[in-house]
Amino acid sequence: MPYTIGLDYGTNSARALVVDCTNGREVGAAVVDYPSGQQGILLDSANHHLARQNPADYLYALEHATRRALAAAGNADIAFSADKVVGIGMDGTGSSPLPVDAHNAPLALDQRFSENPNAQCWLWKDHTSIAEASAITQRARASRPQYLAKIGGVYSAEWFWAKIWHCLKTDPAVFDAAYSWVELSDFIPAVLAGVKTPEDIRRGICMAGHKAMFSEEWDGLPDKAFLSSLDPGLASLRDRLYSAAHDASSTAGNLCDYWAKKLGLPAGIPVAIGEMDVHWGAIGCGISEGTLVKIIGTSTCDCAVVSAKKTVADIPGICGIVPGAILPGYFGVEAGQSAVGDIFKWFVEGVLGGDAGSHAQLTAAATALRPGQSGLLALDWNNGNRTILVDQRLTGLLLGQTLHTTRAEIYRALIEATAFGARTIIERLREYGVPVERIVCSGGVAEKNPLLMQIYADVTGCEIRISRSGNACALGAAVGAAVAAAVHPNFDSAQAAMTGIKDIAYVPIPENQHVYTRLYALYRTLHDAFGGVSETALLGAVMKELLSLK
Amino acid sequence: MPYTIGLDYGTNSARALVVDCTNGREVGAAVVDYPSGQQGILLDSANHHLARQNPADYLYALEHATRRALAAAGNADIAFSADKVVGIGMDGTGSSPLPVDAHNAPLALDQRFSENPNAQCWLWKDHTSIAEASAITQRARASRPQYLAKIGGVYSAEWFWAKIWHCLKTDPAVFDAAYSWVELSDFIPAVLAGVKTPEDIRRGICMAGHKAMFSEEWDGLPDKAFLSSLDPGLASLRDRLYSAAHDASSTAGNLCDYWAKKLGLPAGIPVAIGEMDVHWGAIGCGISEGTLVKIIGTSTCDCAVVSAKKTVADIPGICGIVPGAILPGYFGVEAGQSAVGDIFKWFVEGVLGGDAGSHAQLTAAATALRPGQSGLLALDWNNGNRTILVDQRLTGLLLGQTLHTTRAEIYRALIEATAFGARTIIERLREYGVPVERIVCSGGVAEKNPLLMQIYADVTGCEIRISRSGNACALGAAVGAAVAAAVHPNFDSAQAAMTGIKDIAYVPIPENQHVYTRLYALYRTLHDAFGGVSETALLGAVMKELLSLK
Repeated sequence: MPYTIGLDYGTNSARALVVDCTNGREVGAAVVDYPSGQQGILLDSANHHLARQNPADYLYALEHATRRALAAAGNADIAFSADKVVGIGMDGTGSSPLPVDAHNAPLALDQRFSENPNAQCWLWKDHTSIAEASAITQRARASRPQYLAKIGGVYSAEWFWAKIWHCLKTDPAVFDAAYSWVELSDFIPAVLAGVKTPEDIRRGICMAGHKAMFSEEWDGLPDKAFLSSLDPGLASLRDRLYSAAHDASSTAGNLCDYWAKKLGLPAGIPVAIGEMDVHWGAIGCGISEGTLVKIIGTSTCDCAVVSAKKTVADIPGICGIVPGAILPGYFGVEAGQSAVGDIFKWFVEGVLGGDAGSHAQLTAAATALRPGQSGLLALDWNNGNRTILVDQRLTGLLLGQTLHTTRAEIYRALIEATAFGARTIIERLREYGVPVERIVCSGGVAEKNPLLMQIYADVTGCEIRISRSGNACALGAAVGAAVAAAVHPNFDSAQAAMTGIKDIAYVPIPENQHVYTRLYALYRTLHDAFGGVSETALLGAVMKELLSLK
Repeated sequence: MPYTIGLDYGTNSARALVVDCTNGREVGAAVVDYPSGQQGILLDSANHHLARQNPADYLYALEHATRRALAAAGNADIAFSADKVVGIGMDGTGSSPLPVDAHNAPLALDQRFSENPNAQCWLWKDHTSIAEASAITQRARASRPQYLAKIGGVYSAEWFWAKIWHCLKTDPAVFDAAYSWVELSDFIPAVLAGVKTPEDIRRGICMAGHKAMFSEEWDGLPDKAFLSSLDPGLASLRDRLYSAAHDASSTAGNLCDYWAKKLGLPAGIPVAIGEMDVHWGAIGCGISEGTLVKIIGTSTCDCAVVSAKKTVADIPGICGIVPGAILPGYFGVEAGQSAVGDIFKWFVEGVLGGDAGSHAQLTAAATALRPGQSGLLALDWNNGNRTILVDQRLTGLLLGQTLHTTRAEIYRALIEATAFGARTIIERLREYGVPVERIVCSGGVAEKNPLLMQIYADVTGCEIRISRSGNACALGAAVGAAVAAAVHPNFDSAQAAMTGIKDIAYVPIPENQHVYTRLYALYRTLHDAFGGVSETALLGAVMKELLSLK
């Protein structure tokens, strides 16, 4: 009866999950909020772009979440004991790099830097590096277009190099004191494995390929000449980063004595390679070629895989195609929508002044509406557009209001807008040979809102299923640990044994599909016009077509 | 010490105002709600386009409002007595035609028809005649383009011929029983003057020219061949309508004995010609060449005048240019916005679920915002666009939302949208030689919302003043009565004596004007794109320009 542990490092808290490797049963779980800052995030009232995390929180959560999950498993399952844990895996948000010293200790734990936000972990949503990201995009466009082709054409302010360069420019003392930089999802596995120097950390290909422009095609990280053209400091840092990155067929190492004792686990068990939260989450949802996994929460991440034996072209506007990311033996493809649940929350709580309970009322009223009945159409860009326009400087739009438009109609139009955004991603994937035949969803919004799920089915024309586990990311990390521990010979059989979907299926309703296909054509007209895709647009008929759909 | 009475027939009630002709002092006033229907309107739950009024309500209100106003004047002013009333004037909504018999009695007062909605007055906002209006537009476009040129290019479902034709088609019994049709604003003056047959009614040029395609250029109403091409019944009706229409230098007649006794007024005093509410309202605001009068309420009506000695071209999209309408000796020019106060009411009460008091809170919060600060831009088309697109089948739009957009920001954006709509009208007027140098506003919204007034000043670049009277329409009718009674030799001196503006002036603030000029350019881009004016539009920069304005 082997068990593994999956650790999921989210934005506000970390979760530990004890999983039965034979059937995926979740035996024990615990969530620990990060103690520092506001809901775990270090903010700066003078600079709303800044979002950092205290690395000490990560270690605190590692210990306490794991111990509590083990205790919960012991309480829930008489057959369980900690010595039956055969492996441990971890995922984290990203790109969330932190500076470390030559002994792999976070700079933030050094008293000289403990209060300096630049020495902390630069959380994925930190946007202080917009200027650097833009400069990287321009420089690469001019001299290394191949770097951009793998990441959708635009380097993001949320990513590795932009953040490190911003640190170099604005706080050289921190940059100089940092021996190296490590992604959160590489750091925790390295800590568990007792890795003593940054050079010895086994980095995951997810973060390397999707966020740091790492590719075998150009011998790893961006070359020194390119980095020097940004800043010579970055070129010399390259030597202290990494020259290899690993997919999930490798491990990050084995659990060291120190952390085995601290967690109450057997020393020496394998530690799975670290992956980005949604990548392990895709595995926790049972991803395979033809299945699109959508993790739908405040924002949405989409994951797909294509056999590495095929040739996959670079896909414009898709933020990553990386061999070995997600599943070994496959290209991992990642896309996403910058805001989904956040848009509903904004409208209901920010505009209407409702509370979390108001969503249920509005959903009930919106469920009574037929597609197209409201005459409304929206663009889901309140937080910019991540895929396929890759443009932060876009905003929301609502069109078709009359003097009788209701809040429930607007609520439904916002849901539909996110569904149209989802369809745009799917169409782009298919156009470039990534098959999408079915959709498996996970995340809070997907589980709580059947109306949204049905609209997504009707808009995309795909049957939609919900992941059996409500902890797909942590479960995926536990699956990775089970493969690392050789409980299962490969991910196919591990996923078959440990993951699953719920019975409920959201099946497209043909008459709704028909209306939504017409609405989607109008959405694309607006999308392409305001997204700058089409240089000119014929918009005089848009409102009239919406009225005739009413 | 002569006094006159102005009667203002609104949508839900009628007002009588007793005015001191020497200085415009409003000595007594009374409002009587129409007793029938819902807030005075006869509705049909099976047909939301239908809006009728009971002509008996008009006569009831005539008697009671006048008597109460006279009583109030007597209480307020020791010098006042009813025998000092030297004239009476009336305005009404329009186009609101009602069928009458050969003795000028409303068909609705005939027992056979008293319950038939088609025999009542067809209120201005009745929209049952959309198909007929569209057919009239098409027929005129093909064979009588000159008819459309004077009314902005499109015949409206709210107007005279469309309504009568719809009656003919759907209820021939009513059409056949009607000897003639009379506009409400011609009917009440004819009643007061004791006119016994429809042929003897002295019709006002306002309604004739703006709503019934009457022009001296083609010998009055549309010719019989044209009307026959719609329906021969309309052509034969033409003989029983009118061949002359009068400006305010004529009267409608003199107060008959019957109504003199009923109202307690001296018999024989002149009854001013009837005009549309906003036309007498423009006079009550002191209109002159160069002054645009805006009556801002649920919707907005704009009035301007240009000396009849000048040549005024037909203005595309402006719903009327009629010699003698408004002021004798001037072309009357009328334009409007289909929804202004209604948009704010929809957002605050319909969407946010607030009450009338919520407007003050939102206005306070919106006042604290700088122009452009929200990054929002809206189109004010929730009820279509009356001027300059003349298109009911347009709808609202809001653009620029982020996850931080507040309700106050949206509220302000909606105000700004109506201001941009106002500027569009002003630009069109100026483009065709109608001078607009200053603006005088009246109406509930104008009086209650200084933020809106300042935004209008900043957006239009015009100084804006508020009419001294809160009853500008009734006051204008009283001015007309004073001229009819020769208390003043002409409208110039009557307006100088009897009308005025408040001390407060809304003066454009240069830095706001600067921002709004940039926002207005973006508004026009959206306006022309979604209004179908420009066949193609470059919209990719719109959201980015709004963000950079933030």
